[in-house]
Amino acid sequence: MAGEEHVDESRRFVGTTRLEAFSDGVFAIAITLLVLDLAIRDSGPALDRVADAWPFYLAYVVSFLTIGAAWLAHTAMTDRLTKADLGLLRLNLLLLLFVAVLPFPTRLVAEGLDDVSGERVFVAMYGIVLLAIRVLLYALDTYARWEHLYARGSVGDVEETESVRRGILPVLVGYGVAILVGLVLPAVAVGLYCAIAVFLVVPFGELRRLFLRRT
Amino acid sequence: MAGEEHVDESRRFVGTTRLEAFSDGVFAIAITLLVLDLAIRDSGPALDRVADAWPFYLAYVVSFLTIGAAWLAHTAMTDRLTKADLGLLRLNLLLLLFVAVLPFPTRLVAEGLDDVSGERVFVAMYGIVLLAIRVLLYALDTYARWEHLYARGSVGDVEETESVRRGILPVLVGYGVAILVGLVLPAVAVGLYCAIAVFLVVPFGELRRLFLRRT
Amino acid sequence: MAGEEHVDESRRFVGTTRLEAFSDGVFAIAITLLVLDLAIRDSGPALDRVADAWPFYLAYVVSFLTIGAAWLAHTAMTDRLTKADLGLLRLNLLLLLFVAVLPFPTRLVAEGLDDVSGERVFVAMYGIVLLAIRVLLYALDTYARWEHLYARGSVGDVEETESVRRGILPVLVGYGVAILVGLVLPAVAVGLYCAIAVFLVVPFGELRRLFLRRT
Amino acid sequence: MAGEEHVDESRRFVGTTRLEAFSDGVFAIAITLLVLDLAIRDSGPALDRVADAWPFYLAYVVSFLTIGAAWLAHTAMTDRLTKADLGLLRLNLLLLLFVAVLPFPTRLVAEGLDDVSGERVFVAMYGIVLLAIRVLLYALDTYARWEHLYARGSVGDVEETESVRRGILPVLVGYGVAILVGLVLPAVAVGLYCAIAVFLVVPFGELRRLFLRRT
Repeated sequence: MAGEEHVDESRRFVGTTRLEAFSDGVFAIAITLLVLDLAIRDSGPALDRVADAWPFYLAYVVSFLTIGAAWLAHTAMTDRLTKADLGLLRLNLLLLLFVAVLPFPTRLVAEGLDDVSGERVFVAMYGIVLLAIRVLLYALDTYARWEHLYARGSVGDVEETESVRRGILPVLVGYGVAILVGLVLPAVAVGLYCAIAVFLVVPFGELRRLFLRRT
Repeated sequence: MAGEEHVDESRRFVGTTRLEAFSDGVFAIAITLLVLDLAIRDSGPALDRVADAWPFYLAYVVSFLTIGAAWLAHTAMTDRLTKADLGLLRLNLLLLLFVAVLPFPTRLVAEGLDDVSGERVFVAMYGIVLLAIRVLLYALDTYARWEHLYARGSVGDVEETESVRRGILPVLVGYGVAILVGLVLPAVAVGLYCAIAVFLVVPFGELRRLFLRRT
Repeated sequence: MAGEEHVDESRRFVGTTRLEAFSDGVFAIAITLLVLDLAIRDSGPALDRVADAWPFYLAYVVSFLTIGAAWLAHTAMTDRLTKADLGLLRLNLLLLLFVAVLPFPTRLVAEGLDDVSGERVFVAMYGIVLLAIRVLLYALDTYARWEHLYARGSVGDVEETESVRRGILPVLVGYGVAILVGLVLPAVAVGLYCAIAVFLVVPFGELRRLFLRRT
Repeated sequence: MAGEEHVDESRRFVGTTRLEAFSDGVFAIAITLLVLDLAIRDSGPALDRVADAWPFYLAYVVSFLTIGAAWLAHTAMTDRLTKADLGLLRLNLLLLLFVAVLPFPTRLVAEGLDDVSGERVFVAMYGIVLLAIRVLLYALDTYARWEHLYARGSVGDVEETESVRRGILPVLVGYGVAILVGLVLPAVAVGLYCAIAVFLVVPFGELRRLFLRRT
């Protein structure tokens, strides 16, 4: 029986090389496709046309930082993985679905930020996709722990994956508040999404360490 | 003569690194480009505009899952490959041609799902591309077995490649039925494509194993 | 002096990993972006709309096969490289410039194939880009030989790189004839480009070998 | 205390594989997406339509060479890295933000180069993005030195990274002059950007070495 179970176990795992390569591809393409939706009005003084496109720049930066933060967390996780199983590959595919779809609500928000009737729905959609990315990263980490896919005493970046776990509650609350605020004040919600993205990307622990090292 | 054949053999094989990297690139780009065709109407109440775009979301999910399932099967195969030959690289290129072209019929189906005259042709085209991807995956697997390119007793995911072989008949029949149904009821056909994609992505064997392990 | 030259030598070389990864990325993206220009007319019976778009399908297949053939030759070369130098990286960048630009003349040819006045210029432009890709592959191979960057007695695919060398003259003549023909009969020229692409992708040596092995 | 600091150190570092793969993806996609903005007028004699699109070709070449040069410098750096820390990953993300956004000002410059009122602003924006890419490459190199992330006596391409350091002052001055010139003569500024890009890509040290070797 033990032998059969061993065979069963050995059949369930695959290497992580292509998981990483495919995920890197989707992250890199989604983050770069965002540029296709940057656009300015067709007429008017050039400086005004460039300045009036601020919702596009803001949405670009929020989506870029959110995908960037997701990539950082994803990299920290896969760095610690010794193997992947079929469930992890599927869960990862679900995460990539939301990463890949992000340019769509980004465009809607950018186009609708000066359109009062439309923007609330779009800003809420956008927030839900941003939230889903973070929840799925957390699910991926939980699954990898649950199925013992991480290396023991791994040299990978423990701090970064830990920050995904510790940060999940404030991030969930943050997105929840931002989505609710967005039903009244859409532009404020996009500002809150931006603040959350900056919070996720800036390595506060690292900065504190650097600061302590200097003093 | 044996020596000459050995030379002949050694000239026919290449490593699989770039086969995997290039394929990962095409899979990742095709799956991410799908987002460019997500679009909503220009006018009307925002919630209606978002809701009325359901054919785009459905087509997006079907194509995303189909490419995702193809990537899972492809990864399981290349994980077991020890080498590639010129024939495999060409067959793989043919597979990638159909993967890369998928955003085109996806867009036609999404645009035409509320246009009775057009949608039948588009839904049939879409089904043929989906079918071709699965047939070519099967051909790739058959070729690799025939040319002894897989590692013996490989640690790769046998179950996943086996499921490509075992699943080919139901999948062929499923797509055939869906394409025929689509000539009368196009929206139902797209629903069937979606069901097949879910069937291909959800790891039923794995779920059964997890369930048995818990009981 | 020998020591100084050794230092000088050691400073000139880099690994080929990122050369391959970056090139794979550009090849994969260029080959997949082609799908964005597949389009059909907005009105008319659906079957006619799909059928009338044949120049788009033809141009898609020609460009896909040409990039595919270039990738096959490129892979065969880099498989044999032990190292890269600064000149090779730059020459490779020039090759990638023409690979990346290919979707542009592809689109012009597809749009102009039913526009008698325009198509001659576009078909000639297209042919020149196709020709440039092949000439630069040849230059890359020549450079690698000249600078002794290939492994001696390499296990890589000698036959494939040899075919780049042996095939250069017929290919040059073929493209030259096709471009000239295109100034009179543009559609015929595109057919010739297609024939050359098929000739470059189909492994005739391999097929002959397979045939001989069976007999 | 030393032990604790060692733990602290070990937690800060990650491998460079995914840093390279993700960066290669973004570089490759940004450089290939440029082709989507190549466009010609809809009417007129074909040769005129192709010829009149020269600002698009010029902007394409400048952006392609600038991203190409950035990739060359980036590759030379990561070739010498033994490890990455959280700060380097973030700084790299900021560099990629400017690389990924480049197709946007490229399009504006190409469209506006025959529009006197608009082009000054666009040409200045374009120059600032080009400058930011170069400054961030310099910052990345400085950070890697400061945090001792490079291998000692690394076999990577010292000359190439050295040229990033030595070239920073002329490049800064060059972009500064070009941006100022562009406020008066926008087309001349784009010519200067092109000259800087050529200067960054052409390996003058290598050519001198080749020339000396022959004499």
